[in-house]
Amino acid sequence: MSVVVVQPSRTRFHPFDARQVSLVTGFWADRIRTNRERTIPHGLDQLRSAGNLENLRITDGYRAAADSVGAVLPFLDSDVYKWLEAIGWELARAPDPGLAAAADDVIALVAAAQRPDGYLNTYVQARGGEPYRDMSWGHELYCLAHLIQAAVAWHRALDDDRLLTIAVRAADHVPAALIDGHPGIEMALVELGRVTGERRYVTMAAEMIELRGHGTLAGAERFGATYWQDHDPVRDAASVAGHAVRQLYLDCGAVDVAVELGDDRLLAAVRRRWDDMMRTRTYLTGGMGSRHRDEAFGDPYELPPDRAYAETCAAIASVMLAWRLLLATGDVGYADTIERTMFNGVLPGISLSGTRFFYTNPLQRRTHRVPGGAGERRPWYACACCPPNLMRMLSSWQQYLATHDDSGIQLHQYASADIVSGPVHLQIRTGYPWDGRVTVRFLQSPPEPWTLSMRVPRWCRSATLTGPDGTLAAGAGIVKRHRRWQAGDVVELNLEMPARITEPDPRIDAVRGCVAVERGPLVYCVEAADAPEHTEIEELGWDPGRELASVPRPDIDESMVGVTVPVFRRWPGETPAEGLAVGAIPYFAWANRAVGGMRVWIPR
Amino acid sequence: MSVVVVQPSRTRFHPFDARQVSLVTGFWADRIRTNRERTIPHGLDQLRSAGNLENLRITDGYRAAADSVGAVLPFLDSDVYKWLEAIGWELARAPDPGLAAAADDVIALVAAAQRPDGYLNTYVQARGGEPYRDMSWGHELYCLAHLIQAAVAWHRALDDDRLLTIAVRAADHVPAALIDGHPGIEMALVELGRVTGERRYVTMAAEMIELRGHGTLAGAERFGATYWQDHDPVRDAASVAGHAVRQLYLDCGAVDVAVELGDDRLLAAVRRRWDDMMRTRTYLTGGMGSRHRDEAFGDPYELPPDRAYAETCAAIASVMLAWRLLLATGDVGYADTIERTMFNGVLPGISLSGTRFFYTNPLQRRTHRVPGGAGERRPWYACACCPPNLMRMLSSWQQYLATHDDSGIQLHQYASADIVSGPVHLQIRTGYPWDGRVTVRFLQSPPEPWTLSMRVPRWCRSATLTGPDGTLAAGAGIVKRHRRWQAGDVVELNLEMPARITEPDPRIDAVRGCVAVERGPLVYCVEAADAPEHTEIEELGWDPGRELASVPRPDIDESMVGVTVPVFRRWPGETPAEGLAVGAIPYFAWANRAVGGMRVWIPR
Repeated sequence: MSVVVVQPSRTRFHPFDARQVSLVTGFWADRIRTNRERTIPHGLDQLRSAGNLENLRITDGYRAAADSVGAVLPFLDSDVYKWLEAIGWELARAPDPGLAAAADDVIALVAAAQRPDGYLNTYVQARGGEPYRDMSWGHELYCLAHLIQAAVAWHRALDDDRLLTIAVRAADHVPAALIDGHPGIEMALVELGRVTGERRYVTMAAEMIELRGHGTLAGAERFGATYWQDHDPVRDAASVAGHAVRQLYLDCGAVDVAVELGDDRLLAAVRRRWDDMMRTRTYLTGGMGSRHRDEAFGDPYELPPDRAYAETCAAIASVMLAWRLLLATGDVGYADTIERTMFNGVLPGISLSGTRFFYTNPLQRRTHRVPGGAGERRPWYACACCPPNLMRMLSSWQQYLATHDDSGIQLHQYASADIVSGPVHLQIRTGYPWDGRVTVRFLQSPPEPWTLSMRVPRWCRSATLTGPDGTLAAGAGIVKRHRRWQAGDVVELNLEMPARITEPDPRIDAVRGCVAVERGPLVYCVEAADAPEHTEIEELGWDPGRELASVPRPDIDESMVGVTVPVFRRWPGETPAEGLAVGAIPYFAWANRAVGGMRVWIPR
Repeated sequence: MSVVVVQPSRTRFHPFDARQVSLVTGFWADRIRTNRERTIPHGLDQLRSAGNLENLRITDGYRAAADSVGAVLPFLDSDVYKWLEAIGWELARAPDPGLAAAADDVIALVAAAQRPDGYLNTYVQARGGEPYRDMSWGHELYCLAHLIQAAVAWHRALDDDRLLTIAVRAADHVPAALIDGHPGIEMALVELGRVTGERRYVTMAAEMIELRGHGTLAGAERFGATYWQDHDPVRDAASVAGHAVRQLYLDCGAVDVAVELGDDRLLAAVRRRWDDMMRTRTYLTGGMGSRHRDEAFGDPYELPPDRAYAETCAAIASVMLAWRLLLATGDVGYADTIERTMFNGVLPGISLSGTRFFYTNPLQRRTHRVPGGAGERRPWYACACCPPNLMRMLSSWQQYLATHDDSGIQLHQYASADIVSGPVHLQIRTGYPWDGRVTVRFLQSPPEPWTLSMRVPRWCRSATLTGPDGTLAAGAGIVKRHRRWQAGDVVELNLEMPARITEPDPRIDAVRGCVAVERGPLVYCVEAADAPEHTEIEELGWDPGRELASVPRPDIDESMVGVTVPVFRRWPGETPAEGLAVGAIPYFAWANRAVGGMRVWIPR
């Protein structure tokens, strides 16, 4: 039994067991520690005060539930399950009696809330409702999906089947394949099938995939059938559409079904949508979803920076989908996207402190805004899908760093980590993402030759690989070394990462005449706190006549590297117009200081 | 008793009685005829099939109402009242037995639906609800407002007080000043006070204005208190905010209250908001409201063309507010805005046929769009506020053309019309908006000298006025002639209107690097139907090296003038890149042919 976020039966690349990959120091180790020590405990407090846990105690009628803070939205159970999933991964990383005890209490609540017949949904139960009556908006199978995912995590990570017993009974209560307005159940059922060996769960997931797309979900007059991807069959729809998280969760399930059933046509449909989405509907940050109204993908090239929805959950879902596609196909382009999205689409959703969140991730915030407009991170949300989704994503992040296959090991994401897998012991050290040098030290290796593959990111214009065979230049894609590795061997990948200017696709109307600043895998932004005195960021234009410069930014984070951007004033003002510069910081680190303007895209 | 849309007690300019201004031929006469002969009868059909009229028959409980198509939204009564208001203005223009009979039937329904105690709201009555319990979302006073406006119209236009009797009883049922989530009642009550001479209605409206802005409306967690302008007191709020129609209706009421009470501070607050709105939150078309989610104004300079909400009702409300401000202040800048908004913000909301509508008026529609996305005019809407609002606006349009004061007559909008007011008889003839020559012939005038004022629009860079005293150049603003006019005198205003390129404010991010084409008062757009063969409009960029040309477009409308825009291809394709041109048509005429792409703002 492997500790993995997803365990396909047939893949091109195989995931490592989470226990085989250890984050040691540096950027990601710090992030994961913050998640474990601050974010997850903060989550417990919030689940308690928001009423999610109270909901689990109330299964005896509407009146009591109506008095509870948290009883008003149908999907609140799912946040509890995501939080439990995160703890499952964390306890596999290392014991923590406090977390374990908190989880025990909540698991006991979940167990007690389940009806004798297996049904479990506090929203419906508290209201004395009938199950599966509001498939469009009820989120019952969506909540069940997260229960299953938590159960699978606890089963795999801890060999603890308390949640799995509950989840199986709840899944078995579902009378037949149904379509839920919010997908997610499809991938969960496939995983449940993998864990239990019960083929019928996979079959039900496959049926759900086929049922969708025929306009049968009631309530589509509100946002249209695209909102929940009920407009075109999943194997036919040419492009992503509607609510971004729903589409991406659905496509995760479609990949899982396709892989289990060897359904190449279904897999091809998902890849086609993915390619189109990358080309036409993805922000520079990897974020997705251009519209606030229905949290939806927009038209092709409709990518407004100010009104970007770019929900944190959509970025997480994109990483989940890219990971499934990477495993299924072995195409490292998906790993490139995971990198971009993780740094610039997922991480901006959580503060450096680990306890404040963004639900939406715009690429621009104006200095002058509507009264009462959003713009600050919050400790929690009424609809709090994103915070616990971040928790489970970060808790399992080391699983996304590398894969293996018959030929050897593939390193996809760079972080200081040890990989210990059978006779192979690799020590990876790097200052990534601030520094592009990645050293792989072989502490142990089997006598047979094998191939070490390392991803050279698309953003990198100059890379070299130095190993026992010497140094060679490496282009974007994969660089490989096949040899009989010996203890003491060292391979060093050098990715040059000067700060660079990025031009937008000319078809994106909303950022015409602008440029962005990037460095390595990171998208940068300018924030009011770094603007020249008496100058608003809206007044600044990029000055192409002078050079960008990388500079340390210990004022924000110990190892952080910022970029100094030469600018001019776009209209006359009090401060001098010439020779101005503004400090850009990584976009993921924005909104950790005073509230003010912010821009990723800077006018020329 | 004057036939006027609004009758302030104290004004700088005075409105003419609708019967004193007759549209004769040409652009506006055609539009008004279409409204009378096609749109209003179409409205009756739609009110019938959508259930609005059925609602008026159902006042005996929820079950019956739930079976009715139209019983599901709380504001449906208002559409009936707006339709009745339009008929009031039309019957004053000329009798029409068919319209009169239809109105009689509906008025009888309204009368029968009123409760013995005066209360009238089919949504609440059909559900057996208590009045005024859901001030935030219930729209009860909003519906009452439209009942009052219709009653005032019938009283003034036809001396018919059937509706006024109902409206007075309904207004008197309101126990005290309350805040409605959707403003509108404030201006209606002031008008009711003016019509009945009952000061208490004005007082109640004034109290409503003061009550708002203290965060007391329940339900603000959904969109924020700005949504219904409950965030700042009406006399303090520095900028428009929230739902655009609500803000503009509220400010109409604030002007009406300010004028009645001589409250200069309140009037100044509205003017301040107006100025800020014009500078920072108004589309080139005069449209307003940048966000779909809450139909709201956005941040300053947040004016996306593709996701422009620019609700037809907001443009109508802007004309209503500008008219009140023009009368109150005598500042013809408001008349400039009325012109821009009427041609480019209101008219696009209705098809050339008069029977299909747009609720939102984006300035861009992509060739490739989300599946099932909007983009076509519809015969009606589930929330059908806009169509009957267009009907009443067009039915009363001649009232907006001119004003008078002690010094003489002011011509604000140009159309072929006769003005007969006491001893003055003017014959105005023009090919406007296609041609900038406006001839005013004096058929009769009193022996005393008086001043004829004519507006020279802000868009006009070269104008001359020729009269009995000779010819002189006229700058933007007002051109005046004071003399002892005699029958046979002719004054000719010549407004040059070459097609022109308009640059956007550099602070508007969404249209950076683009230009628009305008001619006279009209904003133009390029539509797919006029693009070069095998070329999508997204591929076109404006070529500044060649000239714009005005060309007749009889293929769309008899007298229409289009503009030929020199363009180049922005990226390589099959068609030649050089020497291309595309025909631009007035924006108001878009979406009357095959559905396809459209752009107002064209990349350079």
